[in-house]
Amino acid sequence: MVVVMAPGASEVQIQEVVQRMQLMGLTIHRSTGNGRTVLGCVGDPSAVDHADIRRLPGVQDCVQITAPFKLVSRQFQPETTVVHAGPATVGANRIAVMAGPCSVEGEEQTFLLAEMVARSGGGFLRGGAFKPRTSPYTFQGLGEEGLRILRRAADQNGLAVVTELLDVSHLSLVAQYADMLQIGARNMQNFSLLREVGKLDKPVLLKRGLSATIEEWLLAAEYILSSGNRQVVLCERGIRTFETYTRNTLDLSCVPVVQELSHLPIVVDPSHATGLREKVGPMARAAVAAGADGLMIEVHPQPEQALSDGAQSLYPAQFERLVRECRAIAEQLGRTL
Amino acid sequence: MVVVMAPGASEVQIQEVVQRMQLMGLTIHRSTGNGRTVLGCVGDPSAVDHADIRRLPGVQDCVQITAPFKLVSRQFQPETTVVHAGPATVGANRIAVMAGPCSVEGEEQTFLLAEMVARSGGGFLRGGAFKPRTSPYTFQGLGEEGLRILRRAADQNGLAVVTELLDVSHLSLVAQYADMLQIGARNMQNFSLLREVGKLDKPVLLKRGLSATIEEWLLAAEYILSSGNRQVVLCERGIRTFETYTRNTLDLSCVPVVQELSHLPIVVDPSHATGLREKVGPMARAAVAAGADGLMIEVHPQPEQALSDGAQSLYPAQFERLVRECRAIAEQLGRTL
Amino acid sequence: MVVVMAPGASEVQIQEVVQRMQLMGLTIHRSTGNGRTVLGCVGDPSAVDHADIRRLPGVQDCVQITAPFKLVSRQFQPETTVVHAGPATVGANRIAVMAGPCSVEGEEQTFLLAEMVARSGGGFLRGGAFKPRTSPYTFQGLGEEGLRILRRAADQNGLAVVTELLDVSHLSLVAQYADMLQIGARNMQNFSLLREVGKLDKPVLLKRGLSATIEEWLLAAEYILSSGNRQVVLCERGIRTFETYTRNTLDLSCVPVVQELSHLPIVVDPSHATGLREKVGPMARAAVAAGADGLMIEVHPQPEQALSDGAQSLYPAQFERLVRECRAIAEQLGRTL
Amino acid sequence: MVVVMAPGASEVQIQEVVQRMQLMGLTIHRSTGNGRTVLGCVGDPSAVDHADIRRLPGVQDCVQITAPFKLVSRQFQPETTVVHAGPATVGANRIAVMAGPCSVEGEEQTFLLAEMVARSGGGFLRGGAFKPRTSPYTFQGLGEEGLRILRRAADQNGLAVVTELLDVSHLSLVAQYADMLQIGARNMQNFSLLREVGKLDKPVLLKRGLSATIEEWLLAAEYILSSGNRQVVLCERGIRTFETYTRNTLDLSCVPVVQELSHLPIVVDPSHATGLREKVGPMARAAVAAGADGLMIEVHPQPEQALSDGAQSLYPAQFERLVRECRAIAEQLGRTL
Repeated sequence: MVVVMAPGASEVQIQEVVQRMQLMGLTIHRSTGNGRTVLGCVGDPSAVDHADIRRLPGVQDCVQITAPFKLVSRQFQPETTVVHAGPATVGANRIAVMAGPCSVEGEEQTFLLAEMVARSGGGFLRGGAFKPRTSPYTFQGLGEEGLRILRRAADQNGLAVVTELLDVSHLSLVAQYADMLQIGARNMQNFSLLREVGKLDKPVLLKRGLSATIEEWLLAAEYILSSGNRQVVLCERGIRTFETYTRNTLDLSCVPVVQELSHLPIVVDPSHATGLREKVGPMARAAVAAGADGLMIEVHPQPEQALSDGAQSLYPAQFERLVRECRAIAEQLGRTL
Repeated sequence: MVVVMAPGASEVQIQEVVQRMQLMGLTIHRSTGNGRTVLGCVGDPSAVDHADIRRLPGVQDCVQITAPFKLVSRQFQPETTVVHAGPATVGANRIAVMAGPCSVEGEEQTFLLAEMVARSGGGFLRGGAFKPRTSPYTFQGLGEEGLRILRRAADQNGLAVVTELLDVSHLSLVAQYADMLQIGARNMQNFSLLREVGKLDKPVLLKRGLSATIEEWLLAAEYILSSGNRQVVLCERGIRTFETYTRNTLDLSCVPVVQELSHLPIVVDPSHATGLREKVGPMARAAVAAGADGLMIEVHPQPEQALSDGAQSLYPAQFERLVRECRAIAEQLGRTL
Repeated sequence: MVVVMAPGASEVQIQEVVQRMQLMGLTIHRSTGNGRTVLGCVGDPSAVDHADIRRLPGVQDCVQITAPFKLVSRQFQPETTVVHAGPATVGANRIAVMAGPCSVEGEEQTFLLAEMVARSGGGFLRGGAFKPRTSPYTFQGLGEEGLRILRRAADQNGLAVVTELLDVSHLSLVAQYADMLQIGARNMQNFSLLREVGKLDKPVLLKRGLSATIEEWLLAAEYILSSGNRQVVLCERGIRTFETYTRNTLDLSCVPVVQELSHLPIVVDPSHATGLREKVGPMARAAVAAGADGLMIEVHPQPEQALSDGAQSLYPAQFERLVRECRAIAEQLGRTL
Repeated sequence: MVVVMAPGASEVQIQEVVQRMQLMGLTIHRSTGNGRTVLGCVGDPSAVDHADIRRLPGVQDCVQITAPFKLVSRQFQPETTVVHAGPATVGANRIAVMAGPCSVEGEEQTFLLAEMVARSGGGFLRGGAFKPRTSPYTFQGLGEEGLRILRRAADQNGLAVVTELLDVSHLSLVAQYADMLQIGARNMQNFSLLREVGKLDKPVLLKRGLSATIEEWLLAAEYILSSGNRQVVLCERGIRTFETYTRNTLDLSCVPVVQELSHLPIVVDPSHATGLREKVGPMARAAVAAGADGLMIEVHPQPEQALSDGAQSLYPAQFERLVRECRAIAEQLGRTL
C-alpha cells in the first residue's frame, strides 16, 4: 500500500497515518520530495481498511498494491473453478442452466417443470421454499414441504437442486435437501451466514447485493472461502439504480470484470434483474454472449397463477425456445449448453 | 388497490390479473370505458406484492390506496412512539444523543468516553462489540468482553447501552447487556433476525440499508412490530449513490418523510454517512434542524489509534462543542437536547 | 389520466387538483366511493407534468393512461424507423456498425481507420472534431480541420460520417460535413439544441444522458420529432451508478424496453460505457444478442498514443475479430451485419 | 501525478503510460522496487484526464497530487469569494435568500411576491422566463415579457434578479434584465454556454447536475472562471438516486465539502430537491445549519394554480415563517440572514 499525503499535510497528520499503519502490523518507508510525503507500507495489507485510510486527515490518496481479496482472486488460482453440485457442474466449458419456479407451490407444478428443464438440457432445478419478502404479509414459502418436493422432482429427472437459505437456523435442514445453497442478494453481507456455509462441504451460489460493488461481492465470497469452502458460484441479478422501468438494472459488464479478477464461475439471473417476462429472453441471450458461465431463469406452467413473481416467469414454451437460442450463441463462442 | 389496464389489453391479460388478485383473497370490481379496463380490488391488500402486479402484461399502472405497511404507519397510531431504553428515551421532545467509539477497544477508552457523553448530556453509550466488516481479515470486535465493558461504563454514568446484533445466535447474549439492540444497515432485510428481535421485550434501533427505499425500510420495521415488539427507532446512516467524496450520501430529507408516514422516532448517524470527521459537525447540526429525534455519533479519545473508522471519529472536545451547537439549534425549534 | 386522491383528502386539496387540471385544458370526471375520490381527466394530457400532479397535497397516485410521448411511440408508428444517412442505414435488418477514433487526430490515422472500418463491413465512420471535456484544460478537438478529414476519409471508403455537435453555433458547420449529427450524453436535455436539429433534414444520433430515465430520453427525442425531424437514432452509452470499476454501467435492458415503447432504432456504445478496452468485446457481443440495431465502437491504430480515451479504444485487429464474432451472433438471430 | 503500475505490468504497458504522459508535456521519473514500477510525473497535470490514465492496461492506480481544478480551489484563493449582484451579495456572513415563483406567470403575481421577499429580508427575486421542460408539450415560460416583469418587480423592491439562461442565443437578452444568470442542472456541462457566460461581467449561479460529482461540478465552474468571470455561486439542488419519494435526494454533505475545496459560495435549493412543499422547510433549516451561504426557494401566492411546480411552492405565510426560523438558526451559528 502506498499512502500519498496532501501537499502541506502537517507532521501530526503524517504521524496519525504512520501510527495507524504500524498498529495494523505494517512497516513504513517514508519519503519526502517536492513538499509532499509518500508512505510505502510493507506487510500484509489485508487487515487494513483501505477506505478508512483514504479518509484520514491530510491523506491525498491511498493506492492498494494488492487486491483486498486473496483466495477468490485469479492471482491466487489462475484456472477457473469448476463447481460440482450433485449431477451438475458450473464453471466448465458447458454453460449451466438453472431453472424452475420462483416459489415451490406444489408437487404437480414442480415435477412438470423439472421434466421440462431436464428435457431442454438444463442441469439445475431452482425454486424457493423459504422466501425473503419485503412485506411480512406476503407469501413466505412452503418450508420443508417445498424442499422435499424439489428433491424428489430433481432426482426423478437427474437434476441438481439449488435453493435459497435465509438463515443459519435452517442450515442443516436446507443442506439435507439441496445440492447448492443459494445466499440471496439481501444476505450478501450477512457475515454470520457466510461463515457458516463456509464450514460446509456443499456448493454455494452467492447473489450480488442490490447495491454491492464488485469488490464487496468478491469480499463476501472471500468470507466463504476463508472459512474453508471453495465451491462458490457468483450470481449477478441486477443492481439498484435510478431507472425504474425494469425492476433492477442488470450489470452485464460485471461478467468479464469478475472473470478477470476471480477464478469463481459467474452466472446471470435475468428474471429477477428485469422483473419483466418479455425482457428475460434478450437479457439471457446477452448474458451468454458476454461470456457468463450459466443462467438462472424462472419458469412457471401458469405464470398468471404464480404466488410470487409471476410477471417475470416464462411460459414453458418460451423457456424451451430461449434455451435453443442461447445454445446457438454459445456455440458461436466455442462453448456448449 | 386500483389496477388500470393498458388501452388494448387483451382479455387474457385482464384475466391473468383478475385470477391473481382473487388468489390473494381480494374481490374484484371491473369497469370498462373508453377502451380501457379498470379493476378495483377490495379486501386486505397487504398480501399483494404491488410491484409484482404492476409488471403483469397489459397492466398500465397499479395504485395502492393504502400503504403496504400498517402497524408502523401514522394512520394506525397518530402520536409519535416514545421508546424507553434503560434510563434513556427516544421520541419525546428531547433530542436523544447516542455517542461512543465505533468499536469497544478497551476499558479505559470506554469509561473515559462514557463519562464525557454523560457530562455533555447524552443518554446512550454506543459501541460495537461484534463488528460487521466487508473483509474477513479486518478487526471483528471484542465480543462478549466488549459487551461487559460497555455495560459497566454505561451503568457507572447513568447511560443506556445501544450495540449491534449481527446474528440470531448472539441474541440472548447481546440482549443480556444492551438496553437497545442495533440492527445494522447490511441486516436491514435479514428477515429472520427482524422476526426474532420482534419477539423480545427490548427496544430495537433499525438502520436503513444502503440501498433501501423508505418504503422498504418501514416494511422491515413492520416485520418487528408485527412480531410483537413496538419499541423501534429508525436510524438514517447514508445511502449509496454515485458520489464518492463522502462515504455515503446522507439523505436528510427522509427525516420529515418518515415523520409524516410513521409514528416511529428517527435518529441520524452522520459519522457513518460522511465517513469524514470534519463533516460530522455540519451534518449533525443539519439533522437537528431537519427535525431528527436523535443523533448517533462516533467519538474516540485518540481517533488516530482507533481500530476501525478512526477517520470519522470526533475528538472529545469536538464532540462537546457540537452538542452545545446542536442544543442551541434545538431550542430555536422548541425542543431540548 | 386518473388521479386517485388519498383517503381523507380534504375538499381544498381536491379542488387544487381539479383547478390545475382545468387550467391545462382537461375535463374532469369526479367519482367518490368508500371514502376516497378518483378524478378521471379527459383531453390531451401531454401538457401535464405527471410528476407534478403526483406530488400535490392529498394525491395518492396519478396514473398515466397514455404515454407522455407521442411521435416517438410505437402506438403512433408500429414499424421500426429506418434512418438513412449518406450511403448507410440504421434500423433495418442489418445491424449498423459505427467505428473510428474518439477524436480525429490527423489525416493518416483517420484514413487508415476508415479503410479498415469499410473492409470489416461497417457503414459509419465516427470521430470527434469538437470534444466535450470535463476539464477546460484537456484536448478539445481539431474543429473544422477534423471535420474535413472525416469527410474525405469517409468518402474515399463509401462510409457515412457521424460526429458530435456541441452547440447551436456550430450547427451549420457540422451539418455541412456530417451525414448524422451526434447529440452527446451531456446535451441530451439541451432543449434548444434539440429543437434546432429538429428543424434540419439530417439524421440525429441521440445519446442517453448519464442519469436519464428511458422516459426522459424518449421525451428528448420527442423534442426533435415534434420540430419536424423524424430521422432519429437512440444510443445507449452507460448510466451512472455506484459501481466504479467500469466507467459507467451499460444498461442493456433498455434495448428491448426501448424497442417495445418506440419505433426509433437503438444502437449501443460499449466503449464509453465500460471505458475498458478488454470489456468492449463482451459488451458488444451482448448488445447484438440483446437485439440492438447497431454498435458504436472506438478504434485507434495506436491506442497508447490517443489524445483522448485511449484506454477504451480497440486495436484494429481486435476490432476486426469482434465484428466477425458479432456477425456470427447476429446470424443466429436472423439478422445480418 | 503518481502512476503505480500493477505487479507484473509488462514493459510494453509501462511504455504506453510513459509515452502518453510525455505527449501531455509531462516529465517522467521512473522507479522500480519489489517487482513494481512507480512513475512520478512532473509538470502541469491539468491537461491530463486522470480517469483515462487509471484505465490504461497494467496501471494499478493513479494518484492526483494536485486537484484537477485550479482557479476555483481554496488553495488558489483562501478567502471565500463574495459575489455582488445588483443590490445583493452572496458569500459574506449574511445568508442570501433568493425566492419567487418557479415561472413568472404575470405582473400581479410577481409584484406581490417581490414585495413579500423584500419584506422578509430576502435579497434576490428568482423566477423563470425560459423554462427547461422534460416534455416539449408543457408550458415553456413567458420569454422576454417574463424578464421585463421580473426586472420591474425587483427594482421596485430593491431586489436583485436571478433567472435561468437556457441557451447562448438568449445570452444578451437575459443579461440585459438579470443581475445573476442561472445555469440549470441540465446545462451544467453545456461547455459552450459555460465559456460564453465566462466572458461576461455578470455573476453566474451554477446548479449542480443531477448526476454530477462534486469534482465535475467544480470543473464546470472552472470553465467559467478560466474564461475570465470569477463571480460564480454554486447551487445544490438534489442528485438522482434510487429513492423516489422525494423528487431528488438533497445532498447537504456537499455544503461543507465544497467549502473545503473551493472559495466559491454555495447555496441550496430545497424546493427542486424535494419537490414537496411540506419538506422544503425542514430542508431549508438543515441547509442553514450545515453552513450554506444562501437559500433558493419557490413561493407562489396560489400554488394550486401555478403553471409549473406548484406542488413544491410555499404559500407566502409559510415562506415568511421559514425565513424567521432560518434566521434564528443562523444567529446561533454566528451568521445573519
